[in-house]
Parts: sequence; structure tokens; C-alpha cells
Amino acid sequence: MLKLNEPMIVVNFKTYLESTGKKALELAKHAEKASKETGVQIIVVPQFVDLAKIAEAVEIPVFAQHLDPIKPGNSTGHILAEAIKEAGVVGALINHSERQLRLIDIEAAVELAKEKGLLSCVCANNPATSAAVAALKPDITSIEPPELIGTGIPVSKAKPEIITNTITLVHQITQAKGGMPVLCGAGISQAEDVAMALKLGTQGILVASGIVKAKDPYSILHAFANATQQQQKEEET
Amino acid sequence: MLKLNEPMIVVNFKTYLESTGKKALELAKHAEKASKETGVQIIVVPQFVDLAKIAEAVEIPVFAQHLDPIKPGNSTGHILAEAIKEAGVVGALINHSERQLRLIDIEAAVELAKEKGLLSCVCANNPATSAAVAALKPDITSIEPPELIGTGIPVSKAKPEIITNTITLVHQITQAKGGMPVLCGAGISQAEDVAMALKLGTQGILVASGIVKAKDPYSILHAFANATQQQQKEEET
Amino acid sequence: MLKLNEPMIVVNFKTYLESTGKKALELAKHAEKASKETGVQIIVVPQFVDLAKIAEAVEIPVFAQHLDPIKPGNSTGHILAEAIKEAGVVGALINHSERQLRLIDIEAAVELAKEKGLLSCVCANNPATSAAVAALKPDITSIEPPELIGTGIPVSKAKPEIITNTITLVHQITQAKGGMPVLCGAGISQAEDVAMALKLGTQGILVASGIVKAKDPYSILHAFANATQQQQKEEET
Amino acid sequence: MLKLNEPMIVVNFKTYLESTGKKALELAKHAEKASKETGVQIIVVPQFVDLAKIAEAVEIPVFAQHLDPIKPGNSTGHILAEAIKEAGVVGALINHSERQLRLIDIEAAVELAKEKGLLSCVCANNPATSAAVAALKPDITSIEPPELIGTGIPVSKAKPEIITNTITLVHQITQAKGGMPVLCGAGISQAEDVAMALKLGTQGILVASGIVKAKDPYSILHAFANATQQQQKEEET
Repeated sequence: MLKLNEPMIVVNFKTYLESTGKKALELAKHAEKASKETGVQIIVVPQFVDLAKIAEAVEIPVFAQHLDPIKPGNSTGHILAEAIKEAGVVGALINHSERQLRLIDIEAAVELAKEKGLLSCVCANNPATSAAVAALKPDITSIEPPELIGTGIPVSKAKPEIITNTITLVHQITQAKGGMPVLCGAGISQAEDVAMALKLGTQGILVASGIVKAKDPYSILHAFANATQQQQKEEET
Repeated sequence: MLKLNEPMIVVNFKTYLESTGKKALELAKHAEKASKETGVQIIVVPQFVDLAKIAEAVEIPVFAQHLDPIKPGNSTGHILAEAIKEAGVVGALINHSERQLRLIDIEAAVELAKEKGLLSCVCANNPATSAAVAALKPDITSIEPPELIGTGIPVSKAKPEIITNTITLVHQITQAKGGMPVLCGAGISQAEDVAMALKLGTQGILVASGIVKAKDPYSILHAFANATQQQQKEEET
Repeated sequence: MLKLNEPMIVVNFKTYLESTGKKALELAKHAEKASKETGVQIIVVPQFVDLAKIAEAVEIPVFAQHLDPIKPGNSTGHILAEAIKEAGVVGALINHSERQLRLIDIEAAVELAKEKGLLSCVCANNPATSAAVAALKPDITSIEPPELIGTGIPVSKAKPEIITNTITLVHQITQAKGGMPVLCGAGISQAEDVAMALKLGTQGILVASGIVKAKDPYSILHAFANATQQQQKEEET
Repeated sequence: MLKLNEPMIVVNFKTYLESTGKKALELAKHAEKASKETGVQIIVVPQFVDLAKIAEAVEIPVFAQHLDPIKPGNSTGHILAEAIKEAGVVGALINHSERQLRLIDIEAAVELAKEKGLLSCVCANNPATSAAVAALKPDITSIEPPELIGTGIPVSKAKPEIITNTITLVHQITQAKGGMPVLCGAGISQAEDVAMALKLGTQGILVASGIVKAKDPYSILHAFANATQQQQKEEET
């Protein structure tokens, strides 16, 4: 369903009260509406407990916030690929800066996702770790400088070189593979930040508080999607 | 809803395929039926992704397999107390041997559960750690020697002294508080194991594969509940 | 060598440059001098790499900053009880707030220390976790509220109730055992903080930057030891 | 001192009793003797507590078993780059399969080593993670399939394709850099295993129990060094 070679906006619900339970479902509905109206892909990433209901209720892609590299069996308190898949989830964030993994587990989770037909979006904190992640061949790589997360200072404006360096390194490593979508995140709250991120060569953004804590998440998402669309048109001409 | 001073059977669904998604719901229904028919408390502990639907569908208590000691906010891939509560969950396992925590996080999770009106069942691997857990004053302590988990060798038969030592230590520590229910688990698969566990002074059992992997989980649960009831009557007389 | 029922000052060298290599040796010598002159027990806790030389060079007790609950064998990058013991180390901090462990590992490390003839000083962050630690029966418990570490705001002044509550809980739990020395730490930099800590019922302090970063560590240690001695006399009369 | 473009034998002392304290020093002396006699580089990797004395006593390179990505300051129980450097250590294993790190910490440790003038040898468990490691540009990469560690079944014989695939991937990633030495380990106990490892394109081996638990470690090391030398000659002709 998700087209990896087209722009995307990934909304991480994190564990905000504004994106928990019923409110999570409403937020997912807003995202779906903004996506349908603009034609821009929006992916929602709710908490585990909200995944099943949201995946049933919306037609946009739903990702999990984490995936454990485990097989079915005697694990307690872990996230099983088969379980999220049966719930209608189509992918997972892996190694988000707030849920960091050992290298061995990132690789195993990426492999597992591939095997189970789930998309993997592996997060990294700087260009070097992004390059390492790219070597593991996930479906998507996302770069988020942790020091900017939740600040409202957009990475695309504050540290554009982090984004461009990341893209250069990732493309060097994945050249044989024909490229890999790179997202960026941290501090993004304005439509212009989204446009800038695309101009810098990313395939979209990973956003959380900028949407979740907004008074009117739908409007912001709509504006983000519009900016994405417009930037896409400019690139085509 | 859960009566802490009455016997209980806690069924940990872990991440078995037999207890994932639709099958998890069926299993929870079997547990509900066995509980209603016998009057013995049965608690189900499904995977996070299945919690909401199961909590809606059954009238027996539903626990989460883990709880993160976090406040609402910028955490990704964690289990928020408010989220599981809104889903209808009434408690959580904490520090299961397959999801072990630092001491500081066990204490914080127990406090958080208390604050949010969730029951806490903290697991421990031996009498000494059970005593330490009891000092944190959770609602329930559960002792499971890791070396017996999933073996079919019941802790109540193989290592009864672990259970009795645990109960002695826990009661010493919680004396001012008027006692604390102690459960035991690992290797329990027969109704007689359940009876033995109660005879040794526990308030019930924590069971997983013995139920989940059984051909007819309902019958086993029913037999476990009957054994519980019978043992309870013997104690009263 | 260490008398557990007499006051003690424990100096955690952490990983400051002022307490690394040659400077660590000098600092240990200052501690030895202050201890010999006053008769007050001072324990030094250098980095692993400095342990052997310092244990050879001084006659005061040397502790390690951490101990892994492992047996000799195929572990890489871990701290083996036998190795630190052969180096002349007599004990170890366990679960320092900057090196926190899972409950299961704290218990295993305490048991291992006992088995190998090493003293264990288990740290905790609040009264509840201190009580849990006491249930594991280490030789010493140390309470350090993490929020005060390195601040210069002494726990003995800022949060005396944390110390007294800890002592009450620890004594309740260890009553059968005849008591357990409780130390306190965080923010201690003045001799009066030490006196206050003893007045509150502790058997001494755990100090780091207050000594390590001092211009004249020897003088401060001497003053701490004097305050300890004086307080001890007052208590005897 | 270490020549990265020449063959090397890295001896991980792990935490065996046979490589602790005085015995560690003897083993390091044997390694030094075998190295001097054959001209083949042998690196010893003792436990932290033994590093200082061994680095003083031998003229061959000494590595630490782990390095923490920390700056001097308030860390307890961690391995500070400045501390091991002052002790005479010239490099460190990072992410050994028995001391695995999060990706973010591997990258930070490699950067730190570079900054402090220490060599980094980052371990990985399979070709994919080796490629990821190579993207971080450490000085050395070492591939060790965990399932063969300590078995006596040599990776060079049992899984040669793991080695060759690793070398291919690592060279793809580091091409701009002019190559990176790749070591292999796990199960190596015979001189022929060493020769095979070199034939497959590695620059040497990482060995532990094969040497440490040997009756006569010196002879084995000598044989390993001879095999290395002979293989090197064959390659030159």
C-alpha cells in the first residue's frame, strides 16, 4: 500500500495523552482525511495498545513504534511481528531514539520484518549511524538528531548539513540497491520545515509533538501535505 | 473487581501464536467461561496489541505483560499506564523473568501502578529477590524459578522449598501490612500442581504454556479452577 | 579489615580526570594519610584500571565501582570477582545510580560477593528501593537521591527525611540480623554535612566530587574524618 | 606500534581464571615471546584490572575488552578512554558478542577512540552487521558467529562463506578508504584454522579459549604465528 518512492509524512504518536486511546483514533482519522484530500501519503504510528482499533478504522498505513526481533514463543512483554501484522499493521519504527537497540537487534528486527512482510523504518541519530543503518538495508532510514527532538527547532533549518550528509552516505552505501528513502525528523512544526526537508533530498518527515500537541492537528497535517505536494510539483518542473 | 485475598489463576499469553490475535480472544473467552462456571478468579495477560479487544470482550480481569515507569509524553515504543487503563486493563505484570527490569524501574512501575489505579504483580526468580520485591509493596508477588519455565516440571513439586521460603520471607517483610498474595509459576501443567501450590501457601499460580499450548485450554483451565475450589474447601474445613 | 560497625567515609573516584591513573594513586594516598591520622575508616573506590596499583600502594580498604554477577569463563568486558580480589580489592559498590542493575543481577552480585569474601555496598535511590536492597542482605546499603548527586546540595541537609525513612525501613527489614550499616550520599562537600549524616543515624557517607574535585582533597578528607570522630564522641557521651 | 596492514593475532583473555592476575601476566609474556620470535603481531586483551601491569610489562600491543563512550566526569563503573590510555593501552574491543552495545554507543565509542588516539576493533556477529560496523569506520572489524564461540569448531572451516561475504561487504563500504582489516574468530584452536582464515582474506584472528585454556599457550601461539608467517609468504609468491 505504501509507495516507498513517493513522499511520506510519518506521525509518531509517542505516548502523549493527546494520542492515547479515543484521541489516538481521532488523530488517525484526521491523518486519514488529510491524506485522502491531498493524495500525500501519511503514516500513523500509534501506541501498541491502540494499533488494532486504528488499523481497522483507517485506510492509511499504520506502523508500530517498535518491533522485537523474536520468534513466537515464550517471550513476555515483547512485540511479536505476527501479532502486529494480524492487527493490520504494515510496518514498524526500529531503533527510535527513545527506544534504542543494540546493533545485533536492529539487524535481526530488519531481517524479521522483511521475512514477515512488514516494512522497516530504522532511525538513527547522526550521519554515521545512518550509514550503518543503511548497510542493514531496511526499507526506510530516518535521521533525527536527538538534541532537537521536541524543541520546535526544525532539523531541516538548524542542521541541514546533517540531512545532506546523511543522504550522501546512505546513497553511497545503497547504490547497488537503487536508493533508499531517507526521512528526517526533530523539531518540525511548520509547513516550511517540511518543504525544506524535501528540498534537502529527503523523502519526507518523521513528526510527533508538532502534530500531536497541536491545537488543530488536522490543519497542520493538511498544511504539511500541501507543502509536500507543492514541493513535489516544483521538483517535477 | 479482582479480590486479592481469594485464590487466582493468572494466564500469561506470552507471544505464542496460539495466543495471538483471534486466538488470543478465543483463549480469553475460554478463561472467562471456566471462571464463571467455577467462581474461581482467572486473570488473562495477553500481548499489548490484543489488550483492548480482549478487555472489551470479556468480564474477567485483564492484565498487561509489562508496564513502563513513564509519564505521558515523548516516549516511543513504551507502555503507558494511562493507555492500558483506557483500554480496560486493570493491572500489569512487572519484572517477568522474560522482561526483567532494573530495581529502580520496578519500584517506579509499582508506584506508578498504585497512582493510576492499576494492580501490580511483580515477578521474582528466587526467595531473596521475592523478599526485595515485597519490600516495594506491590499488590501481588509471583515467584518463578526461571530454570523451570516451560519445562512441564512443576515448581510446586520440584522445588516446594522455594515457594515456602518465599512465603516466609515475604510475610516477614509485609507483616505490618497484613500479608501479600504470593503466586508461583513455572512448569505447571496439571491440576494437582495447582492444588499443591495452594497447599504450600500461595494464593494461586502464574501459568503460560501449560494452558496456551494445551490442545483444549478450556478443559485444563476448568480442571485448574476445580482443583483450586476443592483445595479452598479443604482449607476451610 | 573494614569494621562494619564503625563510621566510614567512602570516596567514589568515578571517572574524573582528577582521579585517574597517577592522580588516582595520589588521591588514594591522601585518603590513607587522613585515615591514619584520624583513625577514621576511609575507603577508596578507584576505576577498575587503577585498582591493582592502588590496592598495592595503600593500606586502607579499596573497593571496585561495580561487580558483575559472573563466574570465571567466557565473558568479555566484565568485572570478575576473582580478578578484583586477586588485585587486593576487598569490596564493591553494586547498583550505583550511574551503573544500575536489574534486580536479579543485584541479588546475584551480592551473593557472589559473599561467596568470594568480598564486601558488598549496594546503592539505592530512595527509601523504598533501599528497603528492597536491605532484603538482599548486602554488607552495606547506601542511599543517594540521584537528583542531588554532584550538586553540592547535601542530602543530609536538603532531604534528611529520606535518610531517616531509609534507616527506619532498612532496620525493620534487617531486624533479625542485628542491623546493617546505612550510608548516604549526594551533594556532600562540607564537614558539617558529614556530621549531620551521622546524627541522622547513618554510619557514614559516600562522596565523590566533593573530594575528587576539591583543590585540596586531603584537607577536606581530614575535616570529614574529624567531623566523624567528633560526632562519634558526642554520641558516646 | 600496531601495523594495521599486516597480519595480527588478537588474544582475548575474557574472564577465565587462567588469564586472571598473575596468570594473565604470564600469558601476556608468552604472547610477547611468540611475537618477538616470529615477528608476527600479537595483541593481548586482558581484563580491565590487569591492564596496567601488563601494559607496563610487555612490549606488544595491549587492548581493553570494552570502552565506554563517556567523557571524564560523573560515571561510576565505566571504562574511560583517558584511563586506559594512561595505563598504556593502545586500543579496545568494542561490541564484543559478550558485551554488546546499542548502535549509538558503538558509533560514539569509535569516534571517542579516534579522538583519544586509541585503536578500535569493533566486533560483529554476521556479514550484515559487519557491513554496518564498517560504515562507522573503526580501525579493525572482527566477525565472530556467536554460535561457534568456545566450541572448537573453527569459523574458517565451518562457515567460510560468512568470512568471505563479510570481507566483500566491508570492502564495498570502505572502498573510498582503502580497505579495512577484517579479523575473524570463534572456534579457532589449530594452526590450520589460522592459515585458512588468512587464505579467506582476513588479516588475522580473534582467539580466546583456544589459547587461554590450552595446556601450553606459548606453543599454540607460536604455531599460530608460524602459520601466519607461512601463509603470508605463500601470498607474496
